[in-house]
Amino acid sequence: MTFDDKLGIQIALEEAKKGYSEGGIPIGSCLIHKDGRVLGRGHNMRIQKSSPTLHAEISALENAGRLPATIYAECTLYTTLSPCNMCTGSALLFKIPRIVLGENETFLGGESYLEQNGVEVVNVHDDGCKELLQKFIKERPSDWNEDIGVPDEK
Amino acid sequence: MTFDDKLGIQIALEEAKKGYSEGGIPIGSCLIHKDGRVLGRGHNMRIQKSSPTLHAEISALENAGRLPATIYAECTLYTTLSPCNMCTGSALLFKIPRIVLGENETFLGGESYLEQNGVEVVNVHDDGCKELLQKFIKERPSDWNEDIGVPDEK
Repeated sequence: MTFDDKLGIQIALEEAKKGYSEGGIPIGSCLIHKDGRVLGRGHNMRIQKSSPTLHAEISALENAGRLPATIYAECTLYTTLSPCNMCTGSALLFKIPRIVLGENETFLGGESYLEQNGVEVVNVHDDGCKELLQKFIKERPSDWNEDIGVPDEK
Repeated sequence: MTFDDKLGIQIALEEAKKGYSEGGIPIGSCLIHKDGRVLGRGHNMRIQKSSPTLHAEISALENAGRLPATIYAECTLYTTLSPCNMCTGSALLFKIPRIVLGENETFLGGESYLEQNGVEVVNVHDDGCKELLQKFIKERPSDWNEDIGVPDEK
């Protein structure tokens, strides 16, 4: 884990905390260029914007705006949680070569598919990312299930 | 190809045409429930909203709003073009069981990955979908390359 990865996950976790403080699902993300520029950052907006598609990674990519393929090719996507299939696919679409994630114990996404497609995946096993999300899931299990496309237990 | 599929692709193509008339990338999509309700429809918004993530399918899902997993499980996602990795992933995330696409000659997305994951994929080989997009690509190749994460030829 390099200094940049620590910083990237720290920013992603700040975004997750911002989401939690807004009453949202606390997952955060950012897109950082290898020169150190934070090109975009964001958090899950399901609850705040009634949005099914603004997962944290999609928010960060959206906030980064339109970028040419040559820029994505020099970036790392940071996320507090293992990326779901949609977010996995967004990284593949834009050929982002590297993903650093906070944890995958709460949810395991498309990591192996990313690796099969040549993306470097680093799990930093961050307790802060895990504890914040698990706290939310205990508080609002229905919102969490909806976000990952799982039928609610009722 | 059932009546519903014809209607679904027709709505998706209407969306693509709307996108083209706005100066945008002409790809359209809609989410239709098996009872016939159009739950969401939309088109690519890269140019209109300076959005990298609002592909047609993501727009349609976004416009459908928050839905429980049980509803997605009874839907078909229609799109004028073979879905990219991100849009493929969005269908997998929400476990949408069926995708009908207008064509895959202009761009071949994640169809085989969808099928590997149990999603039914139907290609209706619609000339209208293909001709509209290919016309746009000739007019604005850079915008198209950016949308699919390909370096521009310069």
